Amino acid sequence: MTSHVKISANALITFLTQMFERHGFAHEDAVFITETLIDADRRGIVSHGLQRVAMYDQKLRHHTINPAASCTIVSDRKACAVMDGHDGMGQLVSRDAMNLAIRKARKHGVGMVAVRDSNHFGAAGIYARMAADQGLIGIVASNSSPLVLPTHASVPALGSNPIAFAVGSGEGQIVYDAATCTASLGKIEILAKTDRPIPGDWAVDEHGDIEHDANDALANIRQAEHGGLTPLGGIGEIDSGYKGYGLSLVVEILTGVLAGGLSSLDLGGRQICHWFSAVELDAFGGSDVVTERLGALFERLRSLPSSDGHPVLVPGDKERAYEAQYANTLTVDRETYGQLRSTARRLDLLAPDMHPVPSPLGNRAPRMGQSEVDSA
Amino acid sequence: MTSHVKISANALITFLTQMFERHGFAHEDAVFITETLIDADRRGIVSHGLQRVAMYDQKLRHHTINPAASCTIVSDRKACAVMDGHDGMGQLVSRDAMNLAIRKARKHGVGMVAVRDSNHFGAAGIYARMAADQGLIGIVASNSSPLVLPTHASVPALGSNPIAFAVGSGEGQIVYDAATCTASLGKIEILAKTDRPIPGDWAVDEHGDIEHDANDALANIRQAEHGGLTPLGGIGEIDSGYKGYGLSLVVEILTGVLAGGLSSLDLGGRQICHWFSAVELDAFGGSDVVTERLGALFERLRSLPSSDGHPVLVPGDKERAYEAQYANTLTVDRETYGQLRSTARRLDLLAPDMHPVPSPLGNRAPRMGQSEVDSA
Repeated sequence: MTSHVKISANALITFLTQMFERHGFAHEDAVFITETLIDADRRGIVSHGLQRVAMYDQKLRHHTINPAASCTIVSDRKACAVMDGHDGMGQLVSRDAMNLAIRKARKHGVGMVAVRDSNHFGAAGIYARMAADQGLIGIVASNSSPLVLPTHASVPALGSNPIAFAVGSGEGQIVYDAATCTASLGKIEILAKTDRPIPGDWAVDEHGDIEHDANDALANIRQAEHGGLTPLGGIGEIDSGYKGYGLSLVVEILTGVLAGGLSSLDLGGRQICHWFSAVELDAFGGSDVVTERLGALFERLRSLPSSDGHPVLVPGDKERAYEAQYANTLTVDRETYGQLRSTARRLDLLAPDMHPVPSPLGNRAPRMGQSEVDSA
Repeated sequence: MTSHVKISANALITFLTQMFERHGFAHEDAVFITETLIDADRRGIVSHGLQRVAMYDQKLRHHTINPAASCTIVSDRKACAVMDGHDGMGQLVSRDAMNLAIRKARKHGVGMVAVRDSNHFGAAGIYARMAADQGLIGIVASNSSPLVLPTHASVPALGSNPIAFAVGSGEGQIVYDAATCTASLGKIEILAKTDRPIPGDWAVDEHGDIEHDANDALANIRQAEHGGLTPLGGIGEIDSGYKGYGLSLVVEILTGVLAGGLSSLDLGGRQICHWFSAVELDAFGGSDVVTERLGALFERLRSLPSSDGHPVLVPGDKERAYEAQYANTLTVDRETYGQLRSTARRLDLLAPDMHPVPSPLGNRAPRMGQSEVDSA
């Protein structure tokens, strides 16, 4: 039994572009959405790549996402603006918002754009890298449906609320991208699919006790009104879970509050709010000098002695290594490939060819650890 | 045996202002430094108030801090700037840098100032509140001497690297202020002084094992080259300690890297780097509207059902409650009062009168939990 298949990246790009065009997107928009999904898989962020195609396909069929939407600027004052995504595809809204933040940064030194009424935007790090690739700092945040327990609360009220930060290039690049909860729902879903227990204090059940069964944790989160995911730092105060809770609340303010949109408390999978910021580096020595300083600092960190045999990494290092390895061919699980075939049949498109591979490639298996992007 | 004493806030203000004047500060600078210290104690942040006077006094006597220093602007482009603190008092450098960030925010919408060659600036939240009190968002970060282990490293390489964020007013105000490690050194010092064990996974010994003895943890941190404090999320990857490590690294970039100053790796208690940002709220509905939205969100969070009897709080709530209670009289431990008296004798000043109190007031005892400011 082969659990995974290999697919040519070019064949996937052709297929997904056609698929999004059939849903009504303009060619260049279909290309951009496709690029973000392929990019996630190429960088080993399997939770936010091809396996999400079925979700987007479903939301488009049910008109939760409007392919004809155009962002509008609600408010625009100097370095700051508010955009309305009008229920458009999160990736396109985010592209437009980060591009506006970058233009503002080039004009004012910093740009800051809060966005309301958008949709799931994939991996937050992609938009932060848009700024980094142009020699700026990129910072991104998003709220999401309520899953996380504020410190001392018995009910979820905050989203996984990821923060991404990127600057520099090559070995002098950092791409930080992480939910402000201990672990995102996606990580628990992957454990549930493979019948593995939750290794840490990621979720609590309806009685407030730590839940280590991944399937029970998912069932509780979907059905019960109590319990949920823990903030970074865990439940209670002993290991400073209130710090993760506070960071998550900062994300709520930058997104829903600044944009005049919904907070995670009121979200149900749509009308999501984001926040994009870009910072020009001219005042700080310029992009080349900053990247040199980053490279020197990161080199010293990567050279630190290890406590456990694992090398010390800088956020983004693992993803860069994957990228070099998966430039031409992607590996996906059979379930995801089956979903792509179903979508192809329904839309009368040719699904890309695949080649079975005998077992999940070791380093393509879902990663549970460092630098896994885990925005929900 | 009385362990604490009560002192009139006015008498303390008079004494500390005189003390800093004797050290060579101009009157208004001495008043500002005094205000930041009194403010910390009034808000229950005892680790960053009067108990730090002896440290500043010593650094001034040893010329680590230069009372005659004036900040200079090294680089200034639109919304962004770099300042050099020239070994000045961290509080004064930070006041000047945040004021510059606020002026830039009023002009450009956002202001961002990276600072090098400063000193310990007290509680980061004070400078974030300077912006909030003027109707803006304030964001602050600082690096500090290396104490924290990057994920998988066996030696400390990062500072406690606090992040502070403040916006709004009254019940609609958030003041987040927290180190990016699980718990700051100050918390462990307080446990050591009172012979209490470390309750959580805050520190590891030279073998990489969790250390629960506070005195042993301090001795190890001061003497050994291995071991140190854990990043938020803990050691290893199970509870996502790499997220705290990554946030700490983001702070290094905003401070040392952007300012062209030292990274925590190279710090030894001086030449500290900070970062100050202010954001004008005009584009986001204006300060009043944003504060209304914040108030509504926070009210819903404070009303959430509790899992353990503790109310759900917004960062800054506890400090506001302390502030109302300690407007006129502060309570300090006898050791700190003894230090104030020694300083007074040496500088030929009159120490403020005190009244013994029979035991630490319950809610003035060192707090170990939520919303304790714990920048090292």
